[in-house]
Amino acid sequence: MDVTLVSEDAIPRNSLNLPETIWWKDGELFFLDQTQLPLTIVGERQDSIEQAFASIKVLKVRGAPAIGVAGAYGVLVGLKSDTQLSVPDFRAKVNARAEYLGEARPTAVNLKWALRRMVEFASLQAADTSEELYAKLVEEAERIHTEDRELCRMIGVHGAKLIQPGNGVLTHCNAGSLATSEYGTATSPMYVAHRNNVSFKVYADETRPLLQGARLTSWELQQGGIDVTLLTDNMAAHIMSQGLIDLVIVGTDRVAANGDVANKIGTLGVAILAKHFGIPFYVALPYSTIDFEMADGTGIPIEEREPDEVTSFGARRTAPESMQVRNPAFDVTPHNLVAGLITERGIILPPFEQNLRTEYVTS
Amino acid sequence: MDVTLVSEDAIPRNSLNLPETIWWKDGELFFLDQTQLPLTIVGERQDSIEQAFASIKVLKVRGAPAIGVAGAYGVLVGLKSDTQLSVPDFRAKVNARAEYLGEARPTAVNLKWALRRMVEFASLQAADTSEELYAKLVEEAERIHTEDRELCRMIGVHGAKLIQPGNGVLTHCNAGSLATSEYGTATSPMYVAHRNNVSFKVYADETRPLLQGARLTSWELQQGGIDVTLLTDNMAAHIMSQGLIDLVIVGTDRVAANGDVANKIGTLGVAILAKHFGIPFYVALPYSTIDFEMADGTGIPIEEREPDEVTSFGARRTAPESMQVRNPAFDVTPHNLVAGLITERGIILPPFEQNLRTEYVTS
Repeated sequence: MDVTLVSEDAIPRNSLNLPETIWWKDGELFFLDQTQLPLTIVGERQDSIEQAFASIKVLKVRGAPAIGVAGAYGVLVGLKSDTQLSVPDFRAKVNARAEYLGEARPTAVNLKWALRRMVEFASLQAADTSEELYAKLVEEAERIHTEDRELCRMIGVHGAKLIQPGNGVLTHCNAGSLATSEYGTATSPMYVAHRNNVSFKVYADETRPLLQGARLTSWELQQGGIDVTLLTDNMAAHIMSQGLIDLVIVGTDRVAANGDVANKIGTLGVAILAKHFGIPFYVALPYSTIDFEMADGTGIPIEEREPDEVTSFGARRTAPESMQVRNPAFDVTPHNLVAGLITERGIILPPFEQNLRTEYVTS
Repeated sequence: MDVTLVSEDAIPRNSLNLPETIWWKDGELFFLDQTQLPLTIVGERQDSIEQAFASIKVLKVRGAPAIGVAGAYGVLVGLKSDTQLSVPDFRAKVNARAEYLGEARPTAVNLKWALRRMVEFASLQAADTSEELYAKLVEEAERIHTEDRELCRMIGVHGAKLIQPGNGVLTHCNAGSLATSEYGTATSPMYVAHRNNVSFKVYADETRPLLQGARLTSWELQQGGIDVTLLTDNMAAHIMSQGLIDLVIVGTDRVAANGDVANKIGTLGVAILAKHFGIPFYVALPYSTIDFEMADGTGIPIEEREPDEVTSFGARRTAPESMQVRNPAFDVTPHNLVAGLITERGIILPPFEQNLRTEYVTS
C-alpha cells in the first residue's frame, strides 16, 4: 500500500506548539505516526477506511480520546464517493463503517462512543441528499474534535489544583497531548500547572512493551518545557520509597460504573505501590470514558496482543525462540485504590458508585 | 583489545546441561559472555585483570555469587608471571589485585567476600615460594567455586518444599544457573522441584533495563525443561490479580542484619505487590550474602548506572535526546515484606534480626 507522508514542517501545531495528532484538511484525514516518535516526526494521509483501521490497530494513532476522534473522522474517509447513494443507503453505509472501525481496538470505550455518536447523528439528522448529510457528518466529527480539545483543557483546570510547588508527579503510559487533543488527560493538569508557573517534577514510566512513556510522554513534556525524568516501570517503587513522588496521575481507557479503572498494563501495579506508600492515585479522563453499562471492572475486555511486542525490541529479538509470553495490553485498577477521577466537570471523589451516578444525573 | 573467543561447542556444560558461566582451565580463566545471550552462546578468555574487571563491570559475568567466583579467579589472571617475587611482595600483589577488583561492582557483597577470602588465605597460608602460594590460591578459588555449586544445590533442596503441584512461581531478574554455579539461587528450588517431577509454572519478569529475565532466566529455564512464561515487569500485578501466582522467589545481592534485601531494581515493587495479594515473597541466597556489618538496608549503596541503558535498547534510541533519566540498578526490600530467606542451611523465617544471628552463632 502506497502511503502519502507529511513532513514535520507541514504538520499543523496546536496551542502547546506540539504537532497535531489528528487533522482533517480539505476533506482528507491525517494522523501523526506515533510509532515513529520521538526520532521521526511524520504524518500519514489516510486514504481508505482500511488504512484508518490499520493505523488505529497498530497504534499509529493511540490513546482513548484520540482514537475516538480518529474513529469519527475515520468513518468519513472515502465516504464522499458514496454520496450518490440514497439517504437511507448512505446511512446504512455509515452504520457498517462504524461497526467495522469499532473492532480496531476492543478496550477503549471512547472509540465506540464516538462511532455511536456519528451513527446516531446520521440517523437523526434530516437531510435531503447524502451529500448534505456527509457535510453535516464532517461538521459533527469536527465538533467531537473541538469538544475533546476543550474538555481536555478543563481536566487540567480542575486537576492543576492537585499539583503543589515542589511536588513530584508520577505518570504511566501516555495520556498526553499525543493521546488526545492538545492538553491530554493525565498531562493536562501538568500543562496547566506549568502555565501557572508552578514548579514541579514529573517522573514518566517508560511503559513496556511499547514504551509510550519513553517515546511519547517524556518527549511531549520535554517539548512543553516541563521538568521530566524517565524511569523504567520497575523503578517506580524505589523512587516512591525515596519520597520523590507526591501524587500519581494516569489516564484511562474505560471506567466502570463503580469507579474501577481500565488503563495501560502496569497501572494496577502503580496504584498498589501508591497505596503502600500513602501517595494519592488520580485518574484523569473525559467524562465520556465512564461506561455506566459496565457495573465493575471484571467485565472490561482486556486485549491480549502479539507476543513479539514482549520478545523483541525494535528489530532485535531479546528472548529465546518459541518462548511462552503473556501480553495483556491493559489491567483493571479497583476503585478502592483511586483517590479521585479528574474530569472536565470537576474532580469526582469516592464513593464513586454514588458520586459518578449523581454527576451523571445532574448534568 | 584482542579477545580470544570460545565457540558454543567448546564451552563446558554443568550437571543441568547448561553452559558453564565461569571456568578455569589450564591456568586460564574463561567467562560465558552473558550480554550476548540468548541469541549467541560464546565464551571469552580473560587475559588480564583489567579485562576481568571490565567483564564484571559490563555484566558479561553477573549475579552476586558468580561475581564472587569470578573475582576469586580474577585475582589469579596473569598472576603466574609474578611468582618470581618474594612471598611478602607476592602477597602484597594479591592484596592490591583484590582491592582493584572489588571496585568493579559496588553493591554485591559476594565479590568483596570472595576477594577477602583470597587475601586472607594468601596471608595465612604458609609457603616457601610464591609459586607454591600461587598453586594453593588456585586451589582456593576452585574450592570457592565448588562450594558455590554445592550450596546452590542445597538452597534448592530446602526451597523445593515451597513449590506445590500446580503452583505459579514468579521470579525477577536472573538469580539462576547463569548468575551462580549450576543450580542458581532463586532458580534452584525450581530445578530441584522439576527433578522431583513436580508440575508447576514459572513467570519470569523481563527485568528492564538490561532484560536479564528475558535474555537469561527465560532461556535457562526453557533449556532446563521448565514451563516458563515471560512477562514485562509491569504485568506482574495483573497476573497476580488473576490468581496465577502462588509464591515469589527472587535472589539478592546483599541482605542486611535485620533481613532487609538489596536486589535488582524492581524487586521492591514485586514484594509490595505480593503483600497486597497475600502471596508469600521468598528470597534465595547463599548464607554468605548476609552482611552482618550492615544493620539495615538504608546503608546499602545503590549503584546508579549510565542513562543510555534506559534511553536506548540495543543500538536503537527510544527516548528523546538529552532526556533526564534515573537508573538505579538495585532497590531495597524491607524485611517486613519477606516471608523467608531460603539458604543452604535451611529456610530462615522472621523475626530475621534474631533468627539470622542465631543461625550465624550456632553454625
